Amino acid sequence: MNAVAFLSPVQAQLQLVEARLHAQADDRHPDLRAALEQILAAGGKRIRPTLGLLVGDMLGAPEDRLVTLGAAVELLHTATLVHDDLIDGSLLRRGTPTLNARWSPAATVLTGDFLFARAARLAAETGHLPLMEYFAETLVVIVNGELNQMFSARGVISRESYFTRIYAKTASLFEMTSRAAAMISPASEDVVESMRRFGYETGMAFQIVDDVLDFNGEQTAMGKPIGSDLLNGVVTLPAIYYAELAPDDPDVRSLAEGGWANQERMVRLVESIRRTDSVQHAMQEATRHVERALVVLNDLEPGAEREALENLAKFIVDRKV
Amino acid sequence: MNAVAFLSPVQAQLQLVEARLHAQADDRHPDLRAALEQILAAGGKRIRPTLGLLVGDMLGAPEDRLVTLGAAVELLHTATLVHDDLIDGSLLRRGTPTLNARWSPAATVLTGDFLFARAARLAAETGHLPLMEYFAETLVVIVNGELNQMFSARGVISRESYFTRIYAKTASLFEMTSRAAAMISPASEDVVESMRRFGYETGMAFQIVDDVLDFNGEQTAMGKPIGSDLLNGVVTLPAIYYAELAPDDPDVRSLAEGGWANQERMVRLVESIRRTDSVQHAMQEATRHVERALVVLNDLEPGAEREALENLAKFIVDRKV
Repeated sequence: MNAVAFLSPVQAQLQLVEARLHAQADDRHPDLRAALEQILAAGGKRIRPTLGLLVGDMLGAPEDRLVTLGAAVELLHTATLVHDDLIDGSLLRRGTPTLNARWSPAATVLTGDFLFARAARLAAETGHLPLMEYFAETLVVIVNGELNQMFSARGVISRESYFTRIYAKTASLFEMTSRAAAMISPASEDVVESMRRFGYETGMAFQIVDDVLDFNGEQTAMGKPIGSDLLNGVVTLPAIYYAELAPDDPDVRSLAEGGWANQERMVRLVESIRRTDSVQHAMQEATRHVERALVVLNDLEPGAEREALENLAKFIVDRKV
Repeated sequence: MNAVAFLSPVQAQLQLVEARLHAQADDRHPDLRAALEQILAAGGKRIRPTLGLLVGDMLGAPEDRLVTLGAAVELLHTATLVHDDLIDGSLLRRGTPTLNARWSPAATVLTGDFLFARAARLAAETGHLPLMEYFAETLVVIVNGELNQMFSARGVISRESYFTRIYAKTASLFEMTSRAAAMISPASEDVVESMRRFGYETGMAFQIVDDVLDFNGEQTAMGKPIGSDLLNGVVTLPAIYYAELAPDDPDVRSLAEGGWANQERMVRLVESIRRTDSVQHAMQEATRHVERALVVLNDLEPGAEREALENLAKFIVDRKV
């Protein structure tokens, strides 16, 4: 499958989203404009706006609201990345220097705040009250998830806390985007619920694949070393499956006592995980989420957008970065 | 005048606001709840919610919306303080340790984000679309002002940039609170505009007095040393008036070339400023703003709330901390 096949129906609208994103620092200080350009240039595939546009176009949402929603969602996502990179001390994202790599922590905090503020304003510009409430609620879920991760002990091996975490971190915003696009469409409540489900399932799959890539990816593809999650004490699905398989591996047992901070141990643990089918097992879990997303689509009218949504869902488990 | 005379008509409603504020971390991680309690305990007089309550009560706004608005505004204000203290490296606020004095920068950034998120959600809970748009726009103004201050050269002596800065920093939120309280009331557009003006004038006065207290206050009253603004390269109104009076004072001339970083110079400059009537001159400017706020009230129906608003405006130029 062509990796970007699902983009074609919304190519022109994505350009509108892109223009809205770049316009967020117009009339602002040149340094802020430069920061925004740097952040947006490092951006990925805009999969969240794409999801919103495809759902909304399929269901007949007005284009201006959809574009505004797409920009709001992408900007919210971007704002969280700016603060995350600062918190993690990450110097690269997708091979590009992060804002905090070049700027002071103070400027990075405020630029993130500015992006949050503009995202909230974009949400307000949709002029849709339930959407704005939903947007604010999703922001609470995302930040609360980050706080829980920060306050929680590191090295914890738990499926439950893993799934809770990736819902807050990623699936909640996919879910919100997909459902909100349906909310601003002339769609029945059943369809709105279906689209919520579609966003949830694709979002869960997206994050699981992201976590799998931390075991499979090249050192530079994501701009961070293999196993970086483990080295931060974050035990993701492949490691959880491996730990269930080999609970007595000393490297597994070390995790709860801070062994994750031992680079030698963690390099060895990554190798052990890769020697088993734990990574494939995690990919199967992602695939199951995608399959559930595809089932949801069966109830909808066939057409170019539905096909594109199918491709988007399939792309999530096919992607390499 | 009794310093808290203006509080009495809204004492009970302020308790409701307080309860809403403390409820924002219910069901959250105990560490986050502890952080919120610490931040709220350090809070001041809740002058912003008081302003909103008095305006709304006077104009017949529904109590539940007013309380929600008050909590949203105070929480937004609190969120900006959390990030400001982190950025400035402040360890005390009102004599109480700041969040960043006890917590990691990472936890402080995320706690601030959480408060922003909850503030946005509270704004959404008013269920009033124009209010939510206005709230988001005000957040943009505040953060943009902080960014401008950060990106701007230090030691700049300019009335224009001073008034622009204090509008963004303080008056914009007073203005928004007062106008928003009128917006959710059965008030005419003229009255809404009057209340915007009232908020603007009291907000400008409030910040000017805050800046004056940096020259007059005790070392510990505000939890920061006298002249701390100057030592950060921030030239406020008393210093601007003095610079206009004594442009050839070497300490004044040094400001643009980084002299603000020289503690000895700045201690001397503060003493020079205090020996002139520059501080009183700044207080007169604050008083003029309050007088303009009082003129606005003349058009409104007399009553307990109007009287309380008068007292609130007068309190601003009478306060000592």
